Amino acid sequence: MKRRNFLKGAALGGAATALAAPAVAGSHATTLTIVSTWPRDFPGLGLSAQRLAARIPEVSNGAIQTEYFAAGERVGAFDVFDEVASGNSQAYVAADYYWIGKHPAFAYFTSVPFGMTTPEWNSWIKFAGGQEMWDKVSGEFGLKALACGATGAQAGGWFNKEINSPDDLNGLKMRIPGLGGTVMSKLGVSTVSLPGGQIYENLVSGAVEATEWVGPYNDYFMKFYEAASFYYTGGMHEPGGGLAFGMNAEWWAQRSDYEKAVIEACCMEEHAAQPEEAGANNGTYLARLVNDHGVKLRAFNDDVWDAFGEAAEEVFEETRDHSALAAEVNDHFQAALRDIGAWRGAAEVEFSNQRNRILGIG
Amino acid sequence: MKRRNFLKGAALGGAATALAAPAVAGSHATTLTIVSTWPRDFPGLGLSAQRLAARIPEVSNGAIQTEYFAAGERVGAFDVFDEVASGNSQAYVAADYYWIGKHPAFAYFTSVPFGMTTPEWNSWIKFAGGQEMWDKVSGEFGLKALACGATGAQAGGWFNKEINSPDDLNGLKMRIPGLGGTVMSKLGVSTVSLPGGQIYENLVSGAVEATEWVGPYNDYFMKFYEAASFYYTGGMHEPGGGLAFGMNAEWWAQRSDYEKAVIEACCMEEHAAQPEEAGANNGTYLARLVNDHGVKLRAFNDDVWDAFGEAAEEVFEETRDHSALAAEVNDHFQAALRDIGAWRGAAEVEFSNQRNRILGIG
Repeated sequence: MKRRNFLKGAALGGAATALAAPAVAGSHATTLTIVSTWPRDFPGLGLSAQRLAARIPEVSNGAIQTEYFAAGERVGAFDVFDEVASGNSQAYVAADYYWIGKHPAFAYFTSVPFGMTTPEWNSWIKFAGGQEMWDKVSGEFGLKALACGATGAQAGGWFNKEINSPDDLNGLKMRIPGLGGTVMSKLGVSTVSLPGGQIYENLVSGAVEATEWVGPYNDYFMKFYEAASFYYTGGMHEPGGGLAFGMNAEWWAQRSDYEKAVIEACCMEEHAAQPEEAGANNGTYLARLVNDHGVKLRAFNDDVWDAFGEAAEEVFEETRDHSALAAEVNDHFQAALRDIGAWRGAAEVEFSNQRNRILGIG
Repeated sequence: MKRRNFLKGAALGGAATALAAPAVAGSHATTLTIVSTWPRDFPGLGLSAQRLAARIPEVSNGAIQTEYFAAGERVGAFDVFDEVASGNSQAYVAADYYWIGKHPAFAYFTSVPFGMTTPEWNSWIKFAGGQEMWDKVSGEFGLKALACGATGAQAGGWFNKEINSPDDLNGLKMRIPGLGGTVMSKLGVSTVSLPGGQIYENLVSGAVEATEWVGPYNDYFMKFYEAASFYYTGGMHEPGGGLAFGMNAEWWAQRSDYEKAVIEACCMEEHAAQPEEAGANNGTYLARLVNDHGVKLRAFNDDVWDAFGEAAEEVFEETRDHSALAAEVNDHFQAALRDIGAWRGAAEVEFSNQRNRILGIG
């Protein structure tokens, strides 16, 4: 499925109608049904969502019970949005940039090209007005989202050949969603958006020749190396990869302050834990990829990065043109990125460069 | 007070004796008394600790009540360790490297020179065996600590002159605790450890000529610029700055699974929030420092960084020599740093460098 088709073909019908969640009269426990975009027991992302679903009853001493459905168990991966917007289920776990066909501003609540790293994005969402922007966008569809999970800076992706110049991208068929996909398409890449569970078969069949996913720990289990052995390190497309616990807005509004506190605390705990778990495992799984499966590690050169940068500028112009809200979110995000990123560059990035130089890391 | 004196003079007596917390018979609520190293309403660090104390009753629906005492309100800032180890109070909020006089391995549970950034440290603590190391060290003193708050990569510090070569450090009197202070002392700096509330008076009186603290947001309110106008960006000494919610170990062991889940979730929520709040505010406060107070921003050059690196190597050798436990913690930490740091360098740091170059950030 081509990303552009996904964009144009997405049905908006059910999404705008929010139904009230049924009242839980005469019962002490609130039930929260969660539908997910990740397959059952999917390492990294799926296990993180399942951990959240198990944690809410623990932290609430049973006052909030959860039911968790992995992709396809109740609705398909990309159907969770309508399922929750309609009030059929109470919450989804997803990357909100899957919904850019409904509104392009959703991209900023996962990750955009040349955007924020996870710590920067967290600062924006929680302490610099990002949540208010997110509420505006989600609110148009009867949803309320909280940050819950993040990938950290994603790998540049898996390719079946080396990318030594922007020309090497021209004509390539690649799975890459979100605005990162739009940047790639400016460079002649034919991009598609596929849920995680469908990438491997498309890569092996040759329907796509390249794909991005997350990083060594999450990617290892996808076996992409069987069809694409060049693995690129830092990429432009998803420097943060924030994930969403997207709730039916009316259901959320009916929760007590206590229930809200539990759900927020559990989401924040898991939001932090997911990238930390990946960070702890990436080294081990990268070694396995390279040593056991012959994966060849590469970095994009400055020419390729510069081409990404020029294309990204066009993409943001086009995104702004969509609507007043898209422009508002973009401009809010871009200003926060420059404000938050500057000190981070001067402190943590400068430290990391000096430490890695002196200790010979990386 | 000289740091070396603090090291040698610290009394170990009360610290090793853990008394059982009083049983809460006939009451539905557990009471948790928290003593803090931060002054009341201290921006950043103090407000974060107060937010935690308010959050635990919210998330537990009142099942756990808290009492919070800022530095000096119940015991002095540096007396919180003995207060909690003795069972007089149930928990402290502090930087655990304040206790290197009791055991040098405590340094690794705040931050060490050329060590981990906050995201790296979080990966180590939560998912790569760091918590088990921490439990071993805290356990020797009847304590159980959870991560709760972090500073992010700290600024190199405030100086009353430019530092253009390692020689410029020789003879300088500087407030810098932890192993970072030990590194500085190798370069001829006369180092002292002082709680936050006492730094300003010592800097203005000339008792110290330089100090490190945290970063622009936290530092702004300290008014150090009145006596030291050169502000250095990335520093070697505290790349992560993790903070501790240090509990009496017997009290913790007596908690139900439910109470533990609430305390853990609240600590993890606040552990994430504190550096995110600072990250959101650093840009604004840096601008005020430079524009309103004439602060001059500087970066250490490679010669100074190289001298820091050589001194740090000596410091880690000496730390290992202290005891088998110090060597075990150091080696565990150093291996995890290289494992976790390598992919982070290849992905997030590489991305940040390219993004900042292309967008002209920093």
